[in-house]
Amino acid sequence: MEIIVPVRWSPLGRGVRIIDQRRLPATLVEEDLQSLDSVCEAIRTLAVRGAPALGVFGAMGLVAALEGADDLSGFSTADRMATAAAAIRATRPTAVNLPWALDRMLAVGTAALSNGSDLLSVLRAEATRIFEENWRMCEAIGVHGAPLVGEGARVMTHCNAGALATAGIGTALAPVYEAVRAGRHVTVVASETRPLLQGSRLTAWELTRAGIPVTVIADNMAAAVMRGGGVDLCIVGADRIAANGDVANKIGTYGLSVIARHHAVPFYVAAPSSTIDTATATGDGIVIEQRPESEVTGSANGVATVPSGASVYNPAFDVTPADLVTAIITEHGVFHPPYRF
Amino acid sequence: MEIIVPVRWSPLGRGVRIIDQRRLPATLVEEDLQSLDSVCEAIRTLAVRGAPALGVFGAMGLVAALEGADDLSGFSTADRMATAAAAIRATRPTAVNLPWALDRMLAVGTAALSNGSDLLSVLRAEATRIFEENWRMCEAIGVHGAPLVGEGARVMTHCNAGALATAGIGTALAPVYEAVRAGRHVTVVASETRPLLQGSRLTAWELTRAGIPVTVIADNMAAAVMRGGGVDLCIVGADRIAANGDVANKIGTYGLSVIARHHAVPFYVAAPSSTIDTATATGDGIVIEQRPESEVTGSANGVATVPSGASVYNPAFDVTPADLVTAIITEHGVFHPPYRF
Repeated sequence: MEIIVPVRWSPLGRGVRIIDQRRLPATLVEEDLQSLDSVCEAIRTLAVRGAPALGVFGAMGLVAALEGADDLSGFSTADRMATAAAAIRATRPTAVNLPWALDRMLAVGTAALSNGSDLLSVLRAEATRIFEENWRMCEAIGVHGAPLVGEGARVMTHCNAGALATAGIGTALAPVYEAVRAGRHVTVVASETRPLLQGSRLTAWELTRAGIPVTVIADNMAAAVMRGGGVDLCIVGADRIAANGDVANKIGTYGLSVIARHHAVPFYVAAPSSTIDTATATGDGIVIEQRPESEVTGSANGVATVPSGASVYNPAFDVTPADLVTAIITEHGVFHPPYRF
Repeated sequence: MEIIVPVRWSPLGRGVRIIDQRRLPATLVEEDLQSLDSVCEAIRTLAVRGAPALGVFGAMGLVAALEGADDLSGFSTADRMATAAAAIRATRPTAVNLPWALDRMLAVGTAALSNGSDLLSVLRAEATRIFEENWRMCEAIGVHGAPLVGEGARVMTHCNAGALATAGIGTALAPVYEAVRAGRHVTVVASETRPLLQGSRLTAWELTRAGIPVTVIADNMAAAVMRGGGVDLCIVGADRIAANGDVANKIGTYGLSVIARHHAVPFYVAAPSSTIDTATATGDGIVIEQRPESEVTGSANGVATVPSGASVYNPAFDVTPADLVTAIITEHGVFHPPYRF
């Protein structure tokens, strides 16, 4: 079974090699990034996306930015590290994994500077640890979640929380991959996930490459599919989970959870424990990124699909209240409410 | 206030003039159709769409097909009428308005043939009556529905059941237009309605031309907008209403009704009484048209958005059970369940 790796050290020895996810599914393009600007641009434009992958990429990207000194000349080493980390941190506000990984990097980097270790070696080692932890985390989510995915299970997911969103077998898709590894026949319904179509472009692509049957639907078809009995369970990822279990995830997740509840379909959230932000009490405290109108207005055959004069609302995420989530699957197990994070 | 007329007699004296809705909102193209093939093609490709407009267009299109004899030579007059009506009837299966209008046309046409009247004159007069009745029907829905749309009301609608779907001020949008005529400030949230984007392309376009503020959202954002308190009521159209009040309408309507119920937002269906199909007991008896996969797979910047190897499910409609509908607005009034059609 082929598992895609969207972010890794360049085999050429310098920089981070990414899959440019903006080009999928039409073309598989890999690129080596070796500067702060290119790292930040890759996050902002969603060439690299998915909360867990953003944590991994933030850490590896910090190393790439410091290795490629061009755009950081004139700073002290400590200032260069702080400046680069701040720039990467500022790219996108909602996922907690990015600041979480950068804080880890800054902690070991600061220690290295004060005890005279080689900064780049130390940072590279820490980023590698974050990568490998992410890989293991995905495997563990798969092992814990796979029992929920029985023989013949039909799993609905939203957006992409698969291999392309992590350094391993994904979060929401990890139980699917693990169930398939165990020999079970599993099919997936992928909602296309407007406006950027991560479901049809990315989830369908990686599942097809892995040989797992997948059916793409428009987001607004989920209710009709569930009413027809076509879904046994939903599994989605998360960008940030508040202390009370409220889940911020790709826009549309909340609506899907309402529809799943109406049809008595279990609704699972799969995410690394690092996604849980105990400093945020409830979902009301999570900042929701607003994305450009052009993502909604310009996507059909290159022709404007919204008349000038109309407004557009384009939040990237929504918040699913804890009471609509059946359980949260992390690398530590399957947790039912009430949660004690 | 500008109200668009999507279907009318050509001012040149022969054929039906339509707005090609496939070209909106980029370009306003009008075209005169003068043959059976062009009439059927316009329905199949959704150049003309919307259940009430399909009834009007089916009647006027039958006249255009019989006026333009080229593709019907070699038949008797009665056979030509029957053949043309059957071809138009077969274009799309779900909306009841098309067979309803054609049955009316065939009845007066058959009578004209048996009593020696001029067939084309009789049919043209009947089609004109259907057009005018449709216009009055929309006005009446507006008058009955407008009291539901108060000062400052924020109305969510799905797909396009506006002027572009009728010969008048629409069905779902009629109460909005009527409330605005009465001087009230109304704003509309239009879900874009994948895969063909009738919400963003058509509803936003006609409302903008009428000077009514409209915000376009992706379909999957409806729940987040309602949770944020941004919607006071939903009004949608209908393609067919079963005897028990189950409503077939554009795919996504059912999901929206579930989400509205969850947020205690009233959910109204506005449609001409001719949409009510008392011969169909429940929604289970309504045939749901399946549309081509290409509508889902090929719509982002002309680049394939679904990998080959993935399946696609593309139903054009879904069924909203009667218990999720607050009331049905027809030209005769606002009807709450239990319905006695």
